[in-house]
Amino acid sequence: MEYRIEKDTMGEVKVPADKLWGAQTERSRNNFKIGAVASMPLEIIYGFAYLKKAAAFTNCELGVLPIEKRDLIAQVCDEILEGKHDDQFPLVIWQTGSGTQSNMNVNEVIANRAQQIAGKKIGDGDPVISANDDVNKSQSSNDTFPTGMHIAIYKKVVENTIRGVIQLRNTLHKKANDYKNVVKIGRTHLMDATPITLGQEISGYVAQLDYGLKALENTLPHLSELALGGTAVGTGLNTPKGYSKRVAEFIAKFTDLPFITAPNKFEALAAHDALVETHGALKQLAVSLNKIANDIRMMASGPRSGIGEIIIPANEPGSSIMPGKVNPTQCEALTMVCAQVIGNDVAVTVGGTQGHYELNVFKPMMAANLLQSAQLLGDACKSFDEHCAQGIEPNLDVIKHLLNNSLMLVTALNTKIGYYKAAEIANTAHKNGTTLKEEAINLGYVTAEEYDEWVKPEDMVGGLK
Amino acid sequence: MEYRIEKDTMGEVKVPADKLWGAQTERSRNNFKIGAVASMPLEIIYGFAYLKKAAAFTNCELGVLPIEKRDLIAQVCDEILEGKHDDQFPLVIWQTGSGTQSNMNVNEVIANRAQQIAGKKIGDGDPVISANDDVNKSQSSNDTFPTGMHIAIYKKVVENTIRGVIQLRNTLHKKANDYKNVVKIGRTHLMDATPITLGQEISGYVAQLDYGLKALENTLPHLSELALGGTAVGTGLNTPKGYSKRVAEFIAKFTDLPFITAPNKFEALAAHDALVETHGALKQLAVSLNKIANDIRMMASGPRSGIGEIIIPANEPGSSIMPGKVNPTQCEALTMVCAQVIGNDVAVTVGGTQGHYELNVFKPMMAANLLQSAQLLGDACKSFDEHCAQGIEPNLDVIKHLLNNSLMLVTALNTKIGYYKAAEIANTAHKNGTTLKEEAINLGYVTAEEYDEWVKPEDMVGGLK
Amino acid sequence: MEYRIEKDTMGEVKVPADKLWGAQTERSRNNFKIGAVASMPLEIIYGFAYLKKAAAFTNCELGVLPIEKRDLIAQVCDEILEGKHDDQFPLVIWQTGSGTQSNMNVNEVIANRAQQIAGKKIGDGDPVISANDDVNKSQSSNDTFPTGMHIAIYKKVVENTIRGVIQLRNTLHKKANDYKNVVKIGRTHLMDATPITLGQEISGYVAQLDYGLKALENTLPHLSELALGGTAVGTGLNTPKGYSKRVAEFIAKFTDLPFITAPNKFEALAAHDALVETHGALKQLAVSLNKIANDIRMMASGPRSGIGEIIIPANEPGSSIMPGKVNPTQCEALTMVCAQVIGNDVAVTVGGTQGHYELNVFKPMMAANLLQSAQLLGDACKSFDEHCAQGIEPNLDVIKHLLNNSLMLVTALNTKIGYYKAAEIANTAHKNGTTLKEEAINLGYVTAEEYDEWVKPEDMVGGLK
Amino acid sequence: MEYRIEKDTMGEVKVPADKLWGAQTERSRNNFKIGAVASMPLEIIYGFAYLKKAAAFTNCELGVLPIEKRDLIAQVCDEILEGKHDDQFPLVIWQTGSGTQSNMNVNEVIANRAQQIAGKKIGDGDPVISANDDVNKSQSSNDTFPTGMHIAIYKKVVENTIRGVIQLRNTLHKKANDYKNVVKIGRTHLMDATPITLGQEISGYVAQLDYGLKALENTLPHLSELALGGTAVGTGLNTPKGYSKRVAEFIAKFTDLPFITAPNKFEALAAHDALVETHGALKQLAVSLNKIANDIRMMASGPRSGIGEIIIPANEPGSSIMPGKVNPTQCEALTMVCAQVIGNDVAVTVGGTQGHYELNVFKPMMAANLLQSAQLLGDACKSFDEHCAQGIEPNLDVIKHLLNNSLMLVTALNTKIGYYKAAEIANTAHKNGTTLKEEAINLGYVTAEEYDEWVKPEDMVGGLK
Repeated sequence: MEYRIEKDTMGEVKVPADKLWGAQTERSRNNFKIGAVASMPLEIIYGFAYLKKAAAFTNCELGVLPIEKRDLIAQVCDEILEGKHDDQFPLVIWQTGSGTQSNMNVNEVIANRAQQIAGKKIGDGDPVISANDDVNKSQSSNDTFPTGMHIAIYKKVVENTIRGVIQLRNTLHKKANDYKNVVKIGRTHLMDATPITLGQEISGYVAQLDYGLKALENTLPHLSELALGGTAVGTGLNTPKGYSKRVAEFIAKFTDLPFITAPNKFEALAAHDALVETHGALKQLAVSLNKIANDIRMMASGPRSGIGEIIIPANEPGSSIMPGKVNPTQCEALTMVCAQVIGNDVAVTVGGTQGHYELNVFKPMMAANLLQSAQLLGDACKSFDEHCAQGIEPNLDVIKHLLNNSLMLVTALNTKIGYYKAAEIANTAHKNGTTLKEEAINLGYVTAEEYDEWVKPEDMVGGLK
Repeated sequence: MEYRIEKDTMGEVKVPADKLWGAQTERSRNNFKIGAVASMPLEIIYGFAYLKKAAAFTNCELGVLPIEKRDLIAQVCDEILEGKHDDQFPLVIWQTGSGTQSNMNVNEVIANRAQQIAGKKIGDGDPVISANDDVNKSQSSNDTFPTGMHIAIYKKVVENTIRGVIQLRNTLHKKANDYKNVVKIGRTHLMDATPITLGQEISGYVAQLDYGLKALENTLPHLSELALGGTAVGTGLNTPKGYSKRVAEFIAKFTDLPFITAPNKFEALAAHDALVETHGALKQLAVSLNKIANDIRMMASGPRSGIGEIIIPANEPGSSIMPGKVNPTQCEALTMVCAQVIGNDVAVTVGGTQGHYELNVFKPMMAANLLQSAQLLGDACKSFDEHCAQGIEPNLDVIKHLLNNSLMLVTALNTKIGYYKAAEIANTAHKNGTTLKEEAINLGYVTAEEYDEWVKPEDMVGGLK
Repeated sequence: MEYRIEKDTMGEVKVPADKLWGAQTERSRNNFKIGAVASMPLEIIYGFAYLKKAAAFTNCELGVLPIEKRDLIAQVCDEILEGKHDDQFPLVIWQTGSGTQSNMNVNEVIANRAQQIAGKKIGDGDPVISANDDVNKSQSSNDTFPTGMHIAIYKKVVENTIRGVIQLRNTLHKKANDYKNVVKIGRTHLMDATPITLGQEISGYVAQLDYGLKALENTLPHLSELALGGTAVGTGLNTPKGYSKRVAEFIAKFTDLPFITAPNKFEALAAHDALVETHGALKQLAVSLNKIANDIRMMASGPRSGIGEIIIPANEPGSSIMPGKVNPTQCEALTMVCAQVIGNDVAVTVGGTQGHYELNVFKPMMAANLLQSAQLLGDACKSFDEHCAQGIEPNLDVIKHLLNNSLMLVTALNTKIGYYKAAEIANTAHKNGTTLKEEAINLGYVTAEEYDEWVKPEDMVGGLK
Repeated sequence: MEYRIEKDTMGEVKVPADKLWGAQTERSRNNFKIGAVASMPLEIIYGFAYLKKAAAFTNCELGVLPIEKRDLIAQVCDEILEGKHDDQFPLVIWQTGSGTQSNMNVNEVIANRAQQIAGKKIGDGDPVISANDDVNKSQSSNDTFPTGMHIAIYKKVVENTIRGVIQLRNTLHKKANDYKNVVKIGRTHLMDATPITLGQEISGYVAQLDYGLKALENTLPHLSELALGGTAVGTGLNTPKGYSKRVAEFIAKFTDLPFITAPNKFEALAAHDALVETHGALKQLAVSLNKIANDIRMMASGPRSGIGEIIIPANEPGSSIMPGKVNPTQCEALTMVCAQVIGNDVAVTVGGTQGHYELNVFKPMMAANLLQSAQLLGDACKSFDEHCAQGIEPNLDVIKHLLNNSLMLVTALNTKIGYYKAAEIANTAHKNGTTLKEEAINLGYVTAEEYDEWVKPEDMVGGLK
C-alpha cells in the first residue's frame, strides 16, 4: 500500500495515500483497535457535516472566515451528506470519550478534500484551508461532538422511531375498532376473568403507544438544544460575538429541524442528561412493546394446544425439524429489540452519571446506544406492523368456546346475590366440572330465567361509565 | 395469644383476637413469609384510604350505598389517614402481584373497625358493613391497587422529591450567582483546560436540575390518571353509571391533587407505563445528582494533597483511625442513593415489561421501588443541601494558584498566532517546566506586552455570545 | 426527653440519655435523615459484633489489649449477638459510604455498655474502655465495614439463599421423577411442538437451579476473604504483627464459617468485586426462577380457558370482585422478587464501578442490596416450595387431550418420508381442521398401520441417546 | 439483478442468482429489515460450520448419512471457516428468537454450495444433498443455534477476553513490582489518608483482575456444554443412538476446545443461564476495569492543576481547540467499554428471564451481546495495555511533595498518644496551615525527636502482618 506523510502537533504520521484523512485520524486508527472497524455511526458524521457547514456560514457572516473558505467547506459538507465519502471515516466508538478524534477526522477530510477541489495535491505546501484553524474555527470537539450527536439522534428519533411507532399504532387503532364487538374472555393473573372485547384489549395497546409517543415527544425540546458555541469548556472562548445563536439557526435551516442553541453551555458539555432523558422514553416504548408483543404471541399460541384466540400471519416455515410449524417470529424480533433497548438504557445511564468537571467523556458510547435503540425500535415496529399486526384476525370459534366455558361470568351475579353466594356457585361448578347455570339453579340462588337475564357476556363489557 | 375465627369463601381462619384484619389478610400473612414483615408501604395503605372513602361517597351519591354505610367507611378511612391503624396492615410487598391481599386487608380492617364503631363485636352475626360487598363495592383489586399506588406515588413525588430537589437547586442557584466572578481553571478529561468561573460550573448543575424537574413534571399527567372504575378487567363491570369520573373527582378533592380518571382503563390495569415513565425521570435526576456530587467531592478533595478548590462543611469526624480527617459524607450518601435509584429503575422496567393480558402483576414491587426512589432522592437532596451545598465556599488561594499555573491559557493565542504555534508554546513549556509567557517570548511568537494583553484568564470566561 | 452530653474530636453533642450510643452516632442521626429510620441492616451490626470480639481476642493475644478489656468487649458483643441491643443502632444506609458512622456506633455502644457492666455511669470521668483506642484498636472503618458486610452476606447466602433454593430444588427433583412418564405436548415459541414428559420439563428446572447453586458457591471463596487487618488504606498501619491472619481465624471460629484473611488488602478496601460477583450469581438464580415460575403459571392457567395442564394449590381467594377465582400468587411473589434482584444487581454494579483510590465508598448500599436479594430469594423459594411447588399435579385429561390434538407429532415421520412430505401432511391437516393420520393416508404417504407404528407420542420422548 | 427460484414448504421465492442461500434465508431477509444488514455475528456462523461438520461426521459414523454426503458437507464447512463465504449470511440478529433462519441459512448455503462442488447447477432437479434432510439431519434449530453460540462465545472468551485481560494484568503486575517502594499518599473518600506505595495500589488492580479471571473461568464449564442432540424440545427426537455424546466429541476435536454434551438438554434449549453466567463474569471484569481506569486517569490528571502523581503516554493531540493538551484517552475508551458491558448485561439478563416452556427465544440477541462484550473487553484491555499501562511512570517530585504535606501522617501517633490527642494535632495544623510536627511539639504531646522517630511515611506502608 502507498502512503503519504501527514503532520499534526505531535509530528509525522504515515497515512494511506488514497485516503482523505490526516494525522490525527490515523493515530486514532492505530491506537484504538477495539471492536469492529469504523463503528462510529455515519449518522454522527453527517451531524458533523451539518454543523461544520453551519459554522462556516456563521464564521463568514460574522467576519472571521473568507467567503471562499466558507464555500469550500460547505461543498465538502454537502458531498459528505450525499454519502460520497462514507469510507473516509474509519474510526471506532471506543476512542477518546469526547469524540475529539472523530471531530478531527471530519476536519481533516474536509481540509484535504478542499485541497483536491482547489486543484491542489494533498500535502502541498500551503493548504487552502486548515483543519484546525478554518474548519474547526470557533469550535472545539467538546461542543461539536455533542452537537453532532444531538443532530443525529433527533433526526433518527423523528424520522425513524416516531414514524415506525405511529405506523404500528395506527394499525392497532384500526384493529381495535374492527374488533370492538368481538367479546372474549378476559384474563388476569393468566387466569380466566370477566369478559372483554378484543377491541378493548387492543385499545389498551394503542393507549400504551400513545403515552409512549407523548413521553418521547416530551424529550425533544431538551434534545433540540445544541452545545455549539460553548467551545472548550462552555465559556465560548474564541467564538465571535453572536455566534452561538446564529450557528444554531443555520443548523436548523440546513436540517429543517427546530434546533436552538442551548441556554446553558456548561450543562451541554459536562452532562448528557438530554440523552438520558430521550433514551428513557425509548425504554418506556420498549416496555410497552414488550407487553404488546407478548400478549399477541400468547393469544396466537397453538394452533391446537395453546390459546389460539387470534391468528397471525404465517411468514416463514418455523422449524427446521418440525414440518408445518409456524411461529410468532415478529413478536420474537420485537421483544429481542426491547431487551436490547432496556440494556442500552443502562449503558446510557451509566455513561450519563460519570461526567467529570467540564466534560462528560462517554459521548460516543452514549450516542451510539441512542442511535441503535432509536433505529431498532422504529424498524422493529415497522416490521412488526407489516408482517404481523396488519394480519391479526380473531379466531371466532375458539374465542366463543373459551368465553362460554368461563366460570368468571359469575361475577355478574355479585350485585344481585352478593360475592359469597356467587363464589359458592363458581366453586361448586369448578369442583363438579359443571356449568355455572346448573349450579346456580341447584344451589337455589337464581332461577334459570334470572340467570339468562343477568349473565350475558355481551353486557359485561359495556364500556366505562 | 388469643384468636378469633374469621371466614372467607375458602373457609375459616384463626386471626389474632386483637387485630382488625380478617381471613384473607391472615392467609396472606401465613402464605408469604418473604423478607421483612409489613413491608407494604404505608403510603399505599393511605392511598387506599383515600380511594375507599371516595368510592363510598360515589356509591352513595349514585344510589348504591346507604349514607350510613358511607359515613362509617369514611370515618374509618379518616382514622387510617390519621395513622391510628398503622399496625393493622401486616402484609408484605411480595404477595400476589395485583395487591389483592392488601386491598382485602384494607376492606377487612374497615369492615371490622366499622363493626366496633357501630358498637358491635367483630364477628357478630350480621356485620354492619361487608368487606366485599360494601367497602369494595364498585371496585376490584385490579383497579384499586393501581389507584392506591398512583395516589401514593404522586403525593410522594410532589411532596418529597420535587420539594427536595428544588431546595437544593435554589441553593446552587444562589451559589452560582455568589461565585460568578471566581475565575478558576476548567477541566476536561480531568485535565487542565481553559478558565471558567466557579459560578459558571455551578450554573451547569442548576441547569441539570431544572431539566430534571421539567422531565419529572412531564410525567405527572400520566401519573394523575386513575384506574378506579375499571374493576376486574377494565370494562367497569359492576359499577354504576358515572362512577369512574365521579370517584376520581372525590379523590382529587380529598387529596387536593389533580387526579382524573384514566381515559383507557385497559391500559391502566394491564400496563404500568406511567410508573416506568415517572421512574425514568427519577433516574434522570439520579444521573444528574451523581455528576454534581462527584464534582463537588473532587473539587473539595484534599485538604492538602488533592484539588482543594472548594471547602465543604466538616460535619463529623471522618475516620475511626485517622485523627482529624473530614470526608465528603453527604456526597457519598447522595451518590449511594443515585446508584440505588438506577438499580430500582431496572426493577421497575422489568416489572413493567411483564404484564400479561388484562393485568400487570408486578404492582406492589413496582410501587415500592417508586416510593423508595422518590423518598430517597427528596431526602438526600434536602440532606445534601443543608449539610453540604449551603456551606460550599471557594478556596481562593488554591484556585488562583492552580489557574495561573495552567498551560491551557495558551488557547487564547489560537486566534492570534494559530493552533500550531500555540501548541508549540504549550508543549515547550510543559517539557521545560517553564511558563507559557517565557516560552511564548523565547519562541518569538509574541512579545511580552502582547502576551499580557492577550492572555487574561478573566477575559477567557466571558459568557456566551 | 432527657439528654446527656457526649464528646468526640469535634466537640460536644447531646444524646438521648437512655441510649448507649455516643457523639458520632448522634451526629450521623442528625446529618442523614434519608429514608426510613435505622435502615442499616442488623445483620451488618451482628457482623461487627463478631469482628469486634475477634479483634479484642487477637489484640489481647498479641499483647496490645489487657484481658479485662478483651472480656468486657466480648461480653457486649455477645449481648449484641443475642439481640439485646437491637434498638441501639439507629443509623441509616445512606450515611458515609465507608460506613464509618456505623463502625463508630458499634464502638460507642460497646464502650458505653462496658461502662455500665463495669458498674459505672456513662460519661463518668475515666472510661473503662475507649471506643476509638480500645474497641477500635488495630482497626479502621475501612477494614471493619467490609469485614462486617462479608460476614453478614456470607451467613445470609449460606443460611438463607442456598437453603431455600435447595429446598425448592429438591421438591422439583421429586416432581421430575414422579411425572417422568406423563407424556405431554412440548411447546417452542409458545407453539405446539413435539412431545415431552412433564418430568423432563421439570428436570430442566432442576438443572437450572443446580447450575445456579454451583455458580453461587463459586463465589463464596472470594466472599470468605476478610479485609480486617488492612486498617486505613490496606497497609495494616497500627496493627500488631500477625494480626490479620489471627483475627480471621477468630472470626471463623466464632461464626463457624470458613473465613480467611484477604491476601490483598488493597483490593479488599478499594473494590467490592466480591459483592459484585456474589450478586451476579444471585441474579442468575433470579433469571432461572423467573423462567420456572413463568412456566408454571402458564401451564396452570385457566382453569377453563387457559392451558390448564397442571394444577397448583389454591391458597387464597384470588379476587375481591370475581368470586371463586384462584391465582398463581406464589409465582407472582417469586417473579416480583426476581425483578427486584435484577434491579439490585444494577445498583450493586454501579456501586462497584465507583471506587476511588484506596476506598470504595458505596459499601452500605452495596451490602444492603446483597442482603435484601439473598434474603428475598431464599424466602421466596421456600414460600414457593411450600405453597406451590409441593402441590403441583398434572391435569391428566387436559394433557392427553392437548397432546393428541397436536400436528407436531408429524415430526416422527421426517426420518421415514422426509421433511417436505411431512410438512405437507401437517399443513393440509391444519388447513382442513383434520387429523394428521387422515391426511397422511389421504396424501398416500403412509398407510394407517405405518402411521400407528411410527407416530407414537410415548416413543418420541425417549430420553437422550 | 438476476434471480433464480428457490422453494421451501411455503412455496416459491425469488433469490439473487449469484447467492448461495435459499428460500428461507430470502424470506427472512425480506421479513426482518431491522437495523444494520447482516448483523448476525460471523462468529456464530462459524460455530454453525463446526457443528454441521461434526453432525455430518456423527451421522455418517452412526450409519444414517453416506460418506459422500458427509464429505461434501465437511468440505463446505471448511470453506466457510476459511472465510470464503462470509457474504452468504445476510441475516440480522432481529429475526426469529430461535435463530431458525440462520440455521436454515447455513443449511441452504451448504446444500447449494455442495451442488456446485458436485458440478451441478443450483436448483437442478435432484439435489445432491438436502438442506433439511441431510445438512440438518439429527438436528433442529433449537439445538443447533445454542450450540453455535456456545462455540462462538467460548472461543471469543478464551481467545480474546482472557488473553487481553491477562496481557494487561501482567503489565500491571510488573508495574506493581517496579514501584513497590514508591511511597505516596493514600486517599480514602478522595481525601488525604495514610501512606501507601504506588506498587501496593497497583497490586490491588492486579488482584481485581485475578479475581475477575477466576470468576470468568468458573463459568466456562457450563458454557462448554452443548445442546446438540436435544433437537426440537430436548428429547433428542430423530437422532440416532449415541449421537449427542459423539457429536460433542467431534466438535471438541474440530475446535480443539473442551466441549461436552449438556447433561440436561431441556435446560440447554429452554434456558440460557450459561450465557447469563458468563456475561455476569464479564460484567464483573467491567466493574474492575472501570475502577482501575478511573484511578489511573485521576492520578494522571493535570499536568499542572490536577493530582499529577503519575505520567501516562501522550498518544494523540488531545484537543482541537486547546493546543498542547493531552488526555487519558485509553482510560476513556476502556470506561466506555465498561459502561457498554454493564448495559449488555441487563439485555442478556432480560433475555434470560423470558424463556417459555421448551425454548428461550432471545438467542440471537443474547449471543450477540455476549460476543460484543467479550470482544470489546479483550480488545480494550489490549489497547489500554499497549497504549497506556505499559507507559505508566511515577512523577516522583509530585508524589513526594503531596506525601510530605499530608496531615494524615498523624495516624502513626495513635498508638503512642491516643486518637484524641492525635486528632487535636491534625486539627490544629489544619486550622493554622502549619505542619504536624510544629503543632505536635507546640501542644506538648511529643518531642521533635519522638516525632521524627515515630512519623516516618516509609514505615507506615510496611506490608500486612
